[in-house]
Amino acid sequence: MQRDKSHIIEDADITVGVESAVDMPTIEFSRESVEDVLKRRFFFTPSFGIYGGVAGLYDYGPPGCALKANMINFWREHFVLNESMLELDGTCLTPEQVLITSGHVAKFQDYMVKDLVTGNCSRADHLLKDVIDKTISESKDQKQIESLKDLRARCEEYDAEQLHASLTELKALSPENNPISKPYPFNLMFEAQIGPSGKNKGFLRPETAQNIFVNFKRLLEVNGGKLPFAAAQVGLAFRNEIAPRQGLLRVREFQMAEIEHFVREDDKDHPSFKDVQTLKMNLYPQGQQLGSKKLIIMSLGEAVGRGIIGNQTLGYFMARTFLFLLGCGVRREGIRFRQHLKREMAHYASDCWDAEILCSYGWIECVGHADRSCFDLTAHSAAGSEQLTAYVRHPQPITVSVVEAVLNKGEVGRAFKADAKKIETYLKSASRQQLLEFKTKLESGSNISFSVDDSKVFELTPKMVKVEQKDVKESGKNITPHVIEPSFGIGRILYTLLEHAHYIREGNTDKKEEGADKIARNVLRLPARIAPTKVSILPLLSDDALEVLIPGLQKDLARSGVSSKSDVSGVAIGRRYARTDEIGVPFGITIDYDTLKDNTVTLRERDSMDQVRIPLSEIVGVVSDLCEGRVTWEQVLSKYPRQEAKEKEEEKK
Amino acid sequence: MQRDKSHIIEDADITVGVESAVDMPTIEFSRESVEDVLKRRFFFTPSFGIYGGVAGLYDYGPPGCALKANMINFWREHFVLNESMLELDGTCLTPEQVLITSGHVAKFQDYMVKDLVTGNCSRADHLLKDVIDKTISESKDQKQIESLKDLRARCEEYDAEQLHASLTELKALSPENNPISKPYPFNLMFEAQIGPSGKNKGFLRPETAQNIFVNFKRLLEVNGGKLPFAAAQVGLAFRNEIAPRQGLLRVREFQMAEIEHFVREDDKDHPSFKDVQTLKMNLYPQGQQLGSKKLIIMSLGEAVGRGIIGNQTLGYFMARTFLFLLGCGVRREGIRFRQHLKREMAHYASDCWDAEILCSYGWIECVGHADRSCFDLTAHSAAGSEQLTAYVRHPQPITVSVVEAVLNKGEVGRAFKADAKKIETYLKSASRQQLLEFKTKLESGSNISFSVDDSKVFELTPKMVKVEQKDVKESGKNITPHVIEPSFGIGRILYTLLEHAHYIREGNTDKKEEGADKIARNVLRLPARIAPTKVSILPLLSDDALEVLIPGLQKDLARSGVSSKSDVSGVAIGRRYARTDEIGVPFGITIDYDTLKDNTVTLRERDSMDQVRIPLSEIVGVVSDLCEGRVTWEQVLSKYPRQEAKEKEEEKK
Repeated sequence: MQRDKSHIIEDADITVGVESAVDMPTIEFSRESVEDVLKRRFFFTPSFGIYGGVAGLYDYGPPGCALKANMINFWREHFVLNESMLELDGTCLTPEQVLITSGHVAKFQDYMVKDLVTGNCSRADHLLKDVIDKTISESKDQKQIESLKDLRARCEEYDAEQLHASLTELKALSPENNPISKPYPFNLMFEAQIGPSGKNKGFLRPETAQNIFVNFKRLLEVNGGKLPFAAAQVGLAFRNEIAPRQGLLRVREFQMAEIEHFVREDDKDHPSFKDVQTLKMNLYPQGQQLGSKKLIIMSLGEAVGRGIIGNQTLGYFMARTFLFLLGCGVRREGIRFRQHLKREMAHYASDCWDAEILCSYGWIECVGHADRSCFDLTAHSAAGSEQLTAYVRHPQPITVSVVEAVLNKGEVGRAFKADAKKIETYLKSASRQQLLEFKTKLESGSNISFSVDDSKVFELTPKMVKVEQKDVKESGKNITPHVIEPSFGIGRILYTLLEHAHYIREGNTDKKEEGADKIARNVLRLPARIAPTKVSILPLLSDDALEVLIPGLQKDLARSGVSSKSDVSGVAIGRRYARTDEIGVPFGITIDYDTLKDNTVTLRERDSMDQVRIPLSEIVGVVSDLCEGRVTWEQVLSKYPRQEAKEKEEEKK
Repeated sequence: MQRDKSHIIEDADITVGVESAVDMPTIEFSRESVEDVLKRRFFFTPSFGIYGGVAGLYDYGPPGCALKANMINFWREHFVLNESMLELDGTCLTPEQVLITSGHVAKFQDYMVKDLVTGNCSRADHLLKDVIDKTISESKDQKQIESLKDLRARCEEYDAEQLHASLTELKALSPENNPISKPYPFNLMFEAQIGPSGKNKGFLRPETAQNIFVNFKRLLEVNGGKLPFAAAQVGLAFRNEIAPRQGLLRVREFQMAEIEHFVREDDKDHPSFKDVQTLKMNLYPQGQQLGSKKLIIMSLGEAVGRGIIGNQTLGYFMARTFLFLLGCGVRREGIRFRQHLKREMAHYASDCWDAEILCSYGWIECVGHADRSCFDLTAHSAAGSEQLTAYVRHPQPITVSVVEAVLNKGEVGRAFKADAKKIETYLKSASRQQLLEFKTKLESGSNISFSVDDSKVFELTPKMVKVEQKDVKESGKNITPHVIEPSFGIGRILYTLLEHAHYIREGNTDKKEEGADKIARNVLRLPARIAPTKVSILPLLSDDALEVLIPGLQKDLARSGVSSKSDVSGVAIGRRYARTDEIGVPFGITIDYDTLKDNTVTLRERDSMDQVRIPLSEIVGVVSDLCEGRVTWEQVLSKYPRQEAKEKEEEKK
């Protein structure tokens, strides 16, 4: 069903849902502790560190790599498998023509300034923000401070001239205190010559979406020619950031997961919208951003109904994203959906909502939800060799009135010779309106005349041409579908998630470890589904009699798809638990001397630190069921005898 | 345990295992039928086809993409999870210095010739082969033909001069029949400037291994400082091939999966070798290649024992690769392990065995197994800021004799002023031999003299310096580990696998489909584990009463991680089965009118076409168990009542 476009909220013109507006949430994060864990336990590291590193490039070590792979698998299940999407895997190398068509060659750029002495480059808006911050910190003029704060909020959208004016006014220098150039655009795509001849210029893709658009026809065919359908792709994208900062949040090579959902422009309803319509989320529409700066908490049904979110499909995907983020362990209060302001919208988008996650760096854009309308398919149809359209049947055949010119080819050929073809082509592409005018003239016996190619004028008599109007039955037509695109930055979700998952537990250690009972311990509260390692295997003491059981247990766990990690170092059990808590291992199996007597082991849960005693023969099944969500920890607690844990006793004292 | 190096087989000097030698196998492939299926069902397609495509770039469509993802998941389970490897995920963008150190900037190249008229480039050895083939086809001189065949077999290893000589002798022209340039080297890496300044040259990685080497120290730390351990990485690599041919077999952007197994040079035994030593594989060692051209079939235990394969670890990984390929569905007789000839070995390798898979293009290198010795870690230690070594404890502390110069700093300082530092540095790095010579001199009362930096000569008296020799206890030392590297080209395995999995079934169709009962049908015999779609859901007829059951069933299957595909088109059931057979769907669920009465459905197996009747409440569990290998089809057949299939009845007639 076509919706009235008047729902689109103009910047600052209305403020919706004031009745449910709330202040922005705040969450305390301890970036220093998190980064200490992530670095020390090799979640990730700057790439090529032994060669001094490269800004904006990071390698994921074993826990980071496993976490990322698990998040992607969960994404595939949650989106691709659950909704039977068509997954594609296209190349990163992309010929120039594709990115000219998509608009990236012309528009995918940031403004930069060069230090006129050292030649080092800075992003113009970032430099401006730094200068503003410095000026504000030194100013006592409240009016100036307010105006600078306003400038700071807007300068990301400035063009080169505006940036230049502001930088000049504030007497900006480079970070090394040298004069700077005027801002000029820098295209953020990495160039790559394809093949040896130098004739075939290409780029590394800045987003994965284009691979899907250029394959639209083949995907449509796989879907039996029917709309709507969604295609998905998980893959790398590359952006040659001018001066990347903020660790994993702004990098030059990153993992994306994108969905392109193709729909008819006149039907953006979604059959599963009913399943999510009562879900309440934090919304931050355009009006709020420029007005009260408050969030509104609203059900999706209401938000779509009131036209705050443009259509059901966009709303449905926002809901699915919300559920995905919660499933990853992102905290509900740290997620908001912010609508793009008109001027910040990408060149292809007609409406856009970002899922932003709050972390120590502020609110970070992690998932975009854009209504790209028919921008891309239209552009590629015009530039490429294929019409990227879908044939849509009318509910019933309809009658349409067709007007066409019928030439008397003999007469025309004799009169115009070689130009006859031009005349035929011209009349074929003439507008309905013009043809009807010709019809009236010809039927009244007059000649008609028109110029082709803005030069030669041709005059035709009623003997040479007539215009016919007739009704024909049409059972369908070719349309260019619209695209709703949820686009996930996996690395950004991963980093913000780690800040959300992190907490510090005070003094819950094994007394045996000298002086350690009051040490604060890092814990990552990662859901079992995405935790890098699912279970640790710890012998109570370093003893071959206990350790001999480990390899078999690990093989059995691996066969059930459960990743495990043993720790046979001689340190106290409490300290070994703490090591696994720190990398988010949700469960721990302890083998002790009772195991040798009665074939049972202890199973410990990371966050409650509760422990139960389980027969060795059942442990693999129980852990596998816990990880796959087939049973809950509460169910395990009620089925198996509890074991009082030393670490908890300590805590109680 | 250190092995005698004399086992390494010199080119053509011996022929091992003649007693078990067999002729090369031959397998019939129907490339045309396979490619028809792969194209029509969108397993893959040339990238950017609507813009004319780019040689050597391919996009995977839904079935190809799922197949690839499933193969990678299986690889992770088989290698990473099963052997607790440390997985890493590093960047493709790589700064130049890293690839200078690794040798790729200097040596990763092919020779090319340019058409002197059009400027188009060809690979010199490929062009030479084409000319040889043409000359052979036109020649009647048996001696010339033999010599040309020999040239053809060797020319891949030729240098520029040798290629030039042969091309000139055969009067080679370009593919467009124009004169060609002399062959010259073309580096196969894609260049990419990192950052905006133009100062930071980089490349897209040509292999994933380097990310692991530069992170060696951090990985070692994750492993508790202990050797051996293996790191693994799945990711893209890029090679700017001069003129790619052969579809997926030679592409410019491809998925690799690599393992770097770090071991002590003096202990390349593997604890799990015993599990694989009775496994028999087809081996094609250097001697055979230059001699009888026959394969030898030999157990791994014997091959390592006789020194044909250099060490247990190399042999162990060859066995694991073999099992992985069989698990993917590659046919046993179409796998051979070919040892590299000395001159074709990569610049970093000391021994190398390729798993080659036979397909319609011949034997294709799909997995390399290289003993890279300590080449990479040594090179990066010298060039980077970190010593990439591991501390290895001696079984017992040993006594070593240390010789060192001890300076009287006061005396030396007074005598040489600013040069004192140079003298100290020189003596610290002096050889044991030289120090012992100094010792003798000094103790006999003579002065010693030496020149530093090939210029200034310093003379020192016995008062200024003495040389001490003493025994110290050493409990371990730092060593540079060796690396055994299995390296998988996922796309190549995928393509050859598809040729192996393909067969044609004659006339097994539903009679209702007019005239179709004798049509030959394509089937892909893909194991359930890696099949793109696990199960099809087909209503017997196009009827809402049957179709209404599909969405719930699909959701339940998805929740169990089983991908399904429904086909509600009105065509005959036999033809719909054939559609799913063609893309390798192993199981099919049919909903018919009995389902509405007794809540049972039919389950069909792809290759036997056997069918059983299963309660709707059990079907998800049964299919999930079949896909995960928890039950076999034979077990299902014996548990549930058979249903005689129409398509089989037809076949019997």
